[in-house]
Amino acid sequence: MDDPVLLTGAGGRVGGAILDGLADEYDWRLLYHSQPATEPDAEFLVGDVTDAELMAEACEGVGAVIHLAGDPRPDAPWDSVLANNIDGTKVLYDAAVEAGVERFVFASSNHAVGHYETDRKPDLYRADDDFRLDGTELPRPGNFYGVSKAAGETLGRFYHDEHGIKVCNVRIGNLTEGHPPVDYERGQAMWLSHRDCAHLHARTLEADYEYEIVYGISDNDRKYYSIERAKAVLGYEPMDNSADFDGRERVADGN
Amino acid sequence: MDDPVLLTGAGGRVGGAILDGLADEYDWRLLYHSQPATEPDAEFLVGDVTDAELMAEACEGVGAVIHLAGDPRPDAPWDSVLANNIDGTKVLYDAAVEAGVERFVFASSNHAVGHYETDRKPDLYRADDDFRLDGTELPRPGNFYGVSKAAGETLGRFYHDEHGIKVCNVRIGNLTEGHPPVDYERGQAMWLSHRDCAHLHARTLEADYEYEIVYGISDNDRKYYSIERAKAVLGYEPMDNSADFDGRERVADGN
Repeated sequence: MDDPVLLTGAGGRVGGAILDGLADEYDWRLLYHSQPATEPDAEFLVGDVTDAELMAEACEGVGAVIHLAGDPRPDAPWDSVLANNIDGTKVLYDAAVEAGVERFVFASSNHAVGHYETDRKPDLYRADDDFRLDGTELPRPGNFYGVSKAAGETLGRFYHDEHGIKVCNVRIGNLTEGHPPVDYERGQAMWLSHRDCAHLHARTLEADYEYEIVYGISDNDRKYYSIERAKAVLGYEPMDNSADFDGRERVADGN
Repeated sequence: MDDPVLLTGAGGRVGGAILDGLADEYDWRLLYHSQPATEPDAEFLVGDVTDAELMAEACEGVGAVIHLAGDPRPDAPWDSVLANNIDGTKVLYDAAVEAGVERFVFASSNHAVGHYETDRKPDLYRADDDFRLDGTELPRPGNFYGVSKAAGETLGRFYHDEHGIKVCNVRIGNLTEGHPPVDYERGQAMWLSHRDCAHLHARTLEADYEYEIVYGISDNDRKYYSIERAKAVLGYEPMDNSADFDGRERVADGN
């Protein structure tokens, strides 16, 4: 990807992981929801994804969009995710298509399928359990935030089918820095390390695809999300595994 | 279903077909968007599904909801389907769950999967083509109306998983009165006769299920929607087939 890449939600946790790993790899245009505390080392805008005029400006000359912006709270109220996550994603797709953007990477979420865990807990969090979700299943959101992410995936399907824009939805797991969540099996099962997060998003910008739904987790021994599709289509090669950590320490360093 | 049944969108085309066939079978409570021209032969309310207070009143003492209300235009603009179809459906689910309603039947649409037809036209409209959608596939909306219907299905999945309310989504085909669409292969392939529409909805009120997505079409020779799930789970026994009609006339009467 030689053209500029628009990163929305640049001030959030996922945005931070992506920029940590890929700051120098792409010509970034960053969208912040509010003025960043320190001056970003790239072109940036401040505002809301529901602002159509600002999104038109943000998408001008851009080759790809990584869309992370929105209300990130799993317990966000409906009215907020309806406006910020569902409507906001639609506004940004319109702007991207109008500007001729080639690909659109959408931060979906494990919460879009949270209710698959019901009745299977805690077995599916264990390394010896072979239940897997692979992205072909219908959504089963665990909250309104998850409903909004599923709707964002469907919007992407529509914009891809209607306008040809390449779309990759990444159902992001549990992103933490340095080490997996401690004493939290679910978080360990869906752990995504910072470097795997950055690498995965680089692959969404480089690989050849049309419309995809992939899971964004590290190569954890515990897992109930398949990463086979991300490996096969995107060339994702995760380096981390929550099983390599004993509490906060890495106990085996196979990498 | 002995308790009253709330029918939203009672003044629309699908509502008319249901009431034509089932007026005397259930204790109806009807929701109209505007004052009906003639006095309905049942208890009724007038207003908008986005009106939470009115929906609370509408759901009081109700055993089931058949939710047809919303902007029915395939080319409806985004802002209208976002408010009327997506937000409105959420408001009604809230009211239904709060009132302890047992089951919720949602009028989804062929438009939720319209883009599966792309690249397959017109072969899939032909009787000798065996491509079938069966309700397990991810949505591929053909327009924003379809996006809103897919979102309504996902909302239903959430309310079912979270609150236990039984949910049946009916992806309604092409409902016409008297005879199938003339010179319109697609419409003949997804034709739903009035009496099959009424019978199918009766089955959604009587059958035992948890969460379903079924296709609402007659037993047409031309078809690319499977009706096997509706038959198996709901006991749907369609009486009509668009192939029995030559233009406007029924040419074979096997029924």
